[in-house]
Amino acid sequence: MDDATELISDIAVRARAAQRKLAQLSSRAKAEGLRRAADTLRGASDKIMAANQKDMESGEKSGLSAAMLDRLMLDEGRISAIADAVENVANLDDPVGQVIDETKPPNGLTMRRIRVPVGVLGIIYESRPNVTADATALAVRSGNAVILRGGSEAVHSNRAIHAALVEGLSQAGLPAEAVQLVPTQDRAAVGAMLRAQGLIDMLIPRGGKFLVERVQKDARVPVLAHLDGICHSYVHTDAKREMAEEIVYNAKMRRTGICGAMETLLIDQDYPAPGPLIRKLLDAGCEVRADDGVLELDSRCVSAETVDWDTEYLGPVVSARLVSGLEDAMSHIAQHSSGHTEAIIAEDVEVAARFLAEVDSAIVMHNTSTQFADGGEFGLGAEIGIATGRLHARGPVALEGLTTYKWVVEGTGQVRP
Amino acid sequence: MDDATELISDIAVRARAAQRKLAQLSSRAKAEGLRRAADTLRGASDKIMAANQKDMESGEKSGLSAAMLDRLMLDEGRISAIADAVENVANLDDPVGQVIDETKPPNGLTMRRIRVPVGVLGIIYESRPNVTADATALAVRSGNAVILRGGSEAVHSNRAIHAALVEGLSQAGLPAEAVQLVPTQDRAAVGAMLRAQGLIDMLIPRGGKFLVERVQKDARVPVLAHLDGICHSYVHTDAKREMAEEIVYNAKMRRTGICGAMETLLIDQDYPAPGPLIRKLLDAGCEVRADDGVLELDSRCVSAETVDWDTEYLGPVVSARLVSGLEDAMSHIAQHSSGHTEAIIAEDVEVAARFLAEVDSAIVMHNTSTQFADGGEFGLGAEIGIATGRLHARGPVALEGLTTYKWVVEGTGQVRP
Repeated sequence: MDDATELISDIAVRARAAQRKLAQLSSRAKAEGLRRAADTLRGASDKIMAANQKDMESGEKSGLSAAMLDRLMLDEGRISAIADAVENVANLDDPVGQVIDETKPPNGLTMRRIRVPVGVLGIIYESRPNVTADATALAVRSGNAVILRGGSEAVHSNRAIHAALVEGLSQAGLPAEAVQLVPTQDRAAVGAMLRAQGLIDMLIPRGGKFLVERVQKDARVPVLAHLDGICHSYVHTDAKREMAEEIVYNAKMRRTGICGAMETLLIDQDYPAPGPLIRKLLDAGCEVRADDGVLELDSRCVSAETVDWDTEYLGPVVSARLVSGLEDAMSHIAQHSSGHTEAIIAEDVEVAARFLAEVDSAIVMHNTSTQFADGGEFGLGAEIGIATGRLHARGPVALEGLTTYKWVVEGTGQVRP
Repeated sequence: MDDATELISDIAVRARAAQRKLAQLSSRAKAEGLRRAADTLRGASDKIMAANQKDMESGEKSGLSAAMLDRLMLDEGRISAIADAVENVANLDDPVGQVIDETKPPNGLTMRRIRVPVGVLGIIYESRPNVTADATALAVRSGNAVILRGGSEAVHSNRAIHAALVEGLSQAGLPAEAVQLVPTQDRAAVGAMLRAQGLIDMLIPRGGKFLVERVQKDARVPVLAHLDGICHSYVHTDAKREMAEEIVYNAKMRRTGICGAMETLLIDQDYPAPGPLIRKLLDAGCEVRADDGVLELDSRCVSAETVDWDTEYLGPVVSARLVSGLEDAMSHIAQHSSGHTEAIIAEDVEVAARFLAEVDSAIVMHNTSTQFADGGEFGLGAEIGIATGRLHARGPVALEGLTTYKWVVEGTGQVRP
């Protein structure tokens, strides 16, 4: 066993033992622990800012972009917002212990499925130090232990936040080893996490595409994540003009850098007013990469290349094409979608119903903007991420997605005939 | 791409296309297809028996054990039972389309989670040809495509059963390519299935430990399975004598070869009548591999070796030890259980509640026999297998475990502020 494997194994074994204790605590005790952690986090504000200063200085030296430095930067306001988010999670309903269903066969046995924590989570993330606190809060609220592996750029910030959180959790009597930060930035530790079958139950990568791709490719532990958000909006023949224009504009331009942003616009060839849809995007400074049909609508459009239909721009660029109808739209989506979020804008309820039934993505929408694809908007209170895999949890994932279930059978002496 | 990878990729792509059609069929249409398949299976009885005869002859030549030959053998009665099982699955409730929950935020959107099929399943199995029909029925009922890869011993039987099933499904208008049998026994095809990320959504190995171990070790596709069923029964101090004796005897001896059979008996050192528990097992011909405390109870016991506490005997052998109390029992289980099924026999409801809450297995039981660990007994109507992994589905898995969900969002023009 190499050093990294031994390190992660040791951390995970201790996390499992702590998780067993955590899982037995009441919902109230876990919430109290998180509230205390929010307090100690606020109290450690100066320490955290000092640690963050070190990260900012090395970041500047090593030439991090302005956007990266902004993600990394912590001030009093941001630390307070991080603490608020921890408190918000403390206030969410605890899924652990919920009865999913119950069966009572004639032999008098009672079988119940009860939600229980998944166990030991591994979070691998990049420059945003707030993930240290967000992931801790969601894990602890749902009775899971968590092994945190943050990026090198934020190492001092993460350590300071982690120390402050653990201090609060410990003060409230929660097992400190349920929340562990991998103490080395050695990349071999990430490899060891990916291979930790049976030690880590679920991995959640948070960060850029390069990170998620590596985790999905190499992990032997199940991964909850999305690689791409190549989201489509299809404007059907009978879509209301004003609604279509507003939704399409919002889906692309509200925030272009989020995974729920529309990347491809499909316009029905019989939709009577395609021009204004495109003009509104172009006027706002969005580049439109178009097929021949859309190209004719406005001379500012540029010609799309094959690769455009499979590209997540995460910026003010959209690919757009005319489709011959619902079937053509759905077949384009089946071929090019990343399984994240797709929307139809249509008045015909049967057409909409077919789209919602047949499009096989984690989230399908009718007459609204793909930018709603977010755990907060879905009433989940927070999210650990959005998953485009097909198993366990799909779409926005919050506390329930961090649980599984067990069967509890109660008898009065029954033996099987 | 090697030949096997190309073959599996081609099969899986066609299976995905067929699955998309299958997923849109009504519950009634899928049930009708399965009933027709049961009919064509009965009608093909002679052909299937002739094919089976070939397998039996090569099995005898290659020296298969009597038990293996018995598993392989098909006669009119067994074929009829296989067809009945297909009809039973047709009669089960279809989970697809069920609304799991619904959220209506103040902005007027409606978010529903709807059960949808997992997609393309891969079943890798050994000598029992009935798996061909069982897996097909469960997959089709829940709207999934299935790629079947049976064992070489049953190749002719599997082909005949598969052909009969597909004939019935096709007659009823179901897409034939939703149920495909891998046309080669080349072992490279299994390897290609294990690596078919994104093409096959879930693998279910059915067969001996060697098969399951290989699949769990090498698969890059998620696997639903259990490797071992090292099930424990703990007899607490205050367990009722007669109840404890009957449950323990049933848990071990009703059928010793099933995964839910008890493999380790933990007796509280303060339980007043440990001798009769052990005697009843010994009298029935069960070998008892005992720690020092149990060894003293009956001279017919043999001394347990360390490996016994981690062994699934699947036969008339049990390991048995005295424990110092509930904590000691739970700590033994945490160390040695395979996460399948564990039971406590106790009158004290608080003690039982702690055991049920703290033991972290797929199934935990109070005052009943571990032999009840079976999808039929849990009211599931049938089972594709029992899973000891922690994600997606745990314990007995039937139709619901072959589904996932998607989020369906309906709006009236909402855009995200």
